Amino acid sequence: MARIVVIGGGAAGASAAARARRLDPTAEIILIERGSLITHAPCGMPYAIAGIAKGELATYSPEKFEKERNIKVYTNSTVTHVDVDKKYVTVERGGRIEKIQWDKLVIATGAKPIVPKMPGVDLKGVLTMRHPDQVAELRSHLEKAKTVAIVGGGYIGIEMSEALLEMGKKVYMFEKFAHPLPAALDPDVAAIVAEEMIKRGVELHLGERVVEFRGSSHVNAVVTEKGEYPVDEVILAVGVEPNVELAVSAGVKLGETGAVYVNEYMETSVPDVYAAGDAVEKVHKITGRRVWIPLAPTANKEGQVAGGNAARGRVMKFPGVVGTAVTKFYDMYIARTGLGEVEATRLGYRVQSALIKARTKAHYMPGGGVVHVKLVAEESSGRILGAQVVGWGQIVSAYVDIAALAIQSGYTISDVFFSDIGYMPDTAPVWHPLIVAARVLSRGHL
Amino acid sequence: MARIVVIGGGAAGASAAARARRLDPTAEIILIERGSLITHAPCGMPYAIAGIAKGELATYSPEKFEKERNIKVYTNSTVTHVDVDKKYVTVERGGRIEKIQWDKLVIATGAKPIVPKMPGVDLKGVLTMRHPDQVAELRSHLEKAKTVAIVGGGYIGIEMSEALLEMGKKVYMFEKFAHPLPAALDPDVAAIVAEEMIKRGVELHLGERVVEFRGSSHVNAVVTEKGEYPVDEVILAVGVEPNVELAVSAGVKLGETGAVYVNEYMETSVPDVYAAGDAVEKVHKITGRRVWIPLAPTANKEGQVAGGNAARGRVMKFPGVVGTAVTKFYDMYIARTGLGEVEATRLGYRVQSALIKARTKAHYMPGGGVVHVKLVAEESSGRILGAQVVGWGQIVSAYVDIAALAIQSGYTISDVFFSDIGYMPDTAPVWHPLIVAARVLSRGHL
Repeated sequence: MARIVVIGGGAAGASAAARARRLDPTAEIILIERGSLITHAPCGMPYAIAGIAKGELATYSPEKFEKERNIKVYTNSTVTHVDVDKKYVTVERGGRIEKIQWDKLVIATGAKPIVPKMPGVDLKGVLTMRHPDQVAELRSHLEKAKTVAIVGGGYIGIEMSEALLEMGKKVYMFEKFAHPLPAALDPDVAAIVAEEMIKRGVELHLGERVVEFRGSSHVNAVVTEKGEYPVDEVILAVGVEPNVELAVSAGVKLGETGAVYVNEYMETSVPDVYAAGDAVEKVHKITGRRVWIPLAPTANKEGQVAGGNAARGRVMKFPGVVGTAVTKFYDMYIARTGLGEVEATRLGYRVQSALIKARTKAHYMPGGGVVHVKLVAEESSGRILGAQVVGWGQIVSAYVDIAALAIQSGYTISDVFFSDIGYMPDTAPVWHPLIVAARVLSRGHL
Repeated sequence: MARIVVIGGGAAGASAAARARRLDPTAEIILIERGSLITHAPCGMPYAIAGIAKGELATYSPEKFEKERNIKVYTNSTVTHVDVDKKYVTVERGGRIEKIQWDKLVIATGAKPIVPKMPGVDLKGVLTMRHPDQVAELRSHLEKAKTVAIVGGGYIGIEMSEALLEMGKKVYMFEKFAHPLPAALDPDVAAIVAEEMIKRGVELHLGERVVEFRGSSHVNAVVTEKGEYPVDEVILAVGVEPNVELAVSAGVKLGETGAVYVNEYMETSVPDVYAAGDAVEKVHKITGRRVWIPLAPTANKEGQVAGGNAARGRVMKFPGVVGTAVTKFYDMYIARTGLGEVEATRLGYRVQSALIKARTKAHYMPGGGVVHVKLVAEESSGRILGAQVVGWGQIVSAYVDIAALAIQSGYTISDVFFSDIGYMPDTAPVWHPLIVAARVLSRGHL
């Protein structure tokens, strides 16, 4: 009987374990998780902290997963060492150290917040968001605060700014780039996001780099290049990085992005060692390049592939990503896929783009929202490279899913224009905003 | 200077005229419309009748269209004859008859409600929904009624049932098939729709054929195979058919569906005569067959192609449809694309299908709705043939747009599963309902 050990109980690890079980009913499968939760949902943390989300940020309790899936789950257990020659892991569990042999290993150690070396970064009250385990602790810290600074205008920063406003806090956001979501959006689209954030009460400091945190034992001020701001707590959300220490110590090769290198079977450079999720790099379907875009749906699917192949050997391939991501700020939804205009240009594409403003329903219907759609295409071929959407209403997030399929299928502007997407007055204008964007992008050809 | 005459001021006709103008700034373009509105939106009629929609059901007034587009617009003008040899149309305008020469003609005469030969069908109060011109008249009829029968459970029937309930009426719906939306949905999905309609108060009579309307001059009862129902008004919505009389009289060939035959350039069988919109048949991208699926977004795009080609000769092609359509009943959205299971089976495909139930947000987020997703695939190839979605919340309509792109791109089950569609807790569960449906459909392969 083979034994499959999975390190990490998040999206990728739990999916890998479940898939391995499905494909091999007899294997012994052990899922090892450092924290207390598995199948946990870090994406829900801002809403749990604000008290908006209800219930556990996890799909399965460890007990339920063990029982329903027949998988051994070791929570509060830390893998301290991986030996790929003798095929065992060393695990610290409840004060005891044990060695666990494996035939196949899946590394799903995820990502962690970047903590820049900066004076005062170790002060109490300089908080990072790592794991749903922390929700109660973070909430109790933040509840007492009057003023909170968010450092970093990425997805977590945006979502936490809503959460903190909802909790009644004075909220600063500091972003060193000139617009929020700099890695996700072009400046023209990000400007729409910034405007709404200011309108809702975020004190937004763009193009302002934080250089220090001050305080005696607990932080009481954020210092930037431009000034000093008294605060009670700080959310440090300047980005994430892959958790690769274990992989590195095991001799697993990293890729050019600094994340674990895997092939399409989710095999690492070491035989019988697979990796999946936020710890690994992915192939971008447009550029063919290796990228590191850590997102839960990708992690889930990569976990499936890794687990399936660990159990049965090369039964599935993971085909890559186009970088589809979504966030929200109150009822403004922000989504993107493919390459932005700035990013595509940097990668050497000659591009054309169109940014249009439309509504989410026919003009005569009540309740629609404004939506801004940007499409980016390669000038020579007309191939759609990217889409960015900001709009009011949940549905606009799906516009980007439609665009993602167009992009991963190699659609041209004309292909998008002629796509048979649906219409009735309450779901879209008769010329769907995506179709309008394609038409404008065609510069008179459509 | 060429003269382009367009018959019909709806979606297809207005698009054709606008596109012709765009591609030929010098042509004389005349748009002839029987009613008083152009660029009109019949899809909005149920909401305008109920007082939900505000403002005109038209994008442009004739005056604005004339001025902004430099197109002559003849409203309240009926084309009574088309001569394709001498290239003129005969038009009745304000009591006068005139002949208008053309170099290129676009027929965009649309569709009309089917009025079955049935005793009493000509009684006053047996109403059909033809044109936004009728809104005020229909509303005044229906406002006075206490009890209204809707005959036909298609899109118009469903939307009118909501409108009439909102107006405080007692509403009967009679549908001869055993479930609503028989042409659009499979029985298992339609059953969900029926349940909600009953819950909201529609007295739904399924599998019950109407055989007669009774009354002296005004209808006062609907008679079915099973009984007699006293009513004040009747909405007759048993289907639509293409308006082809003019085309036929001009010697333009009809296709196998009974609608006007056109090639991908929207050229009819007669030189210099184009046709577009609900009057014409389309090519189904999955089956390659000719179908008649009259929908506004298709009409708009076909109009563009017809107008562009009328102006400049074969500059654009219309690539066909996959039959994406959407409707709603209160906050339940109903959408479909491709082939249903019943339809596909009838066409000779061996199919497999999965119908799943999920939610539109992560389980811990407030405000999500239930959504049912059905996917149909060809058994041998795994190619996705169709998708049907019923769910609570506008966003579920876009699931079908995503599926439409998958279908028109020839995706397999696995391609859908690995599609890079977005996630955050407020826009979808981490396993998107479409991905879950693909997984279930894979029968353990994913």
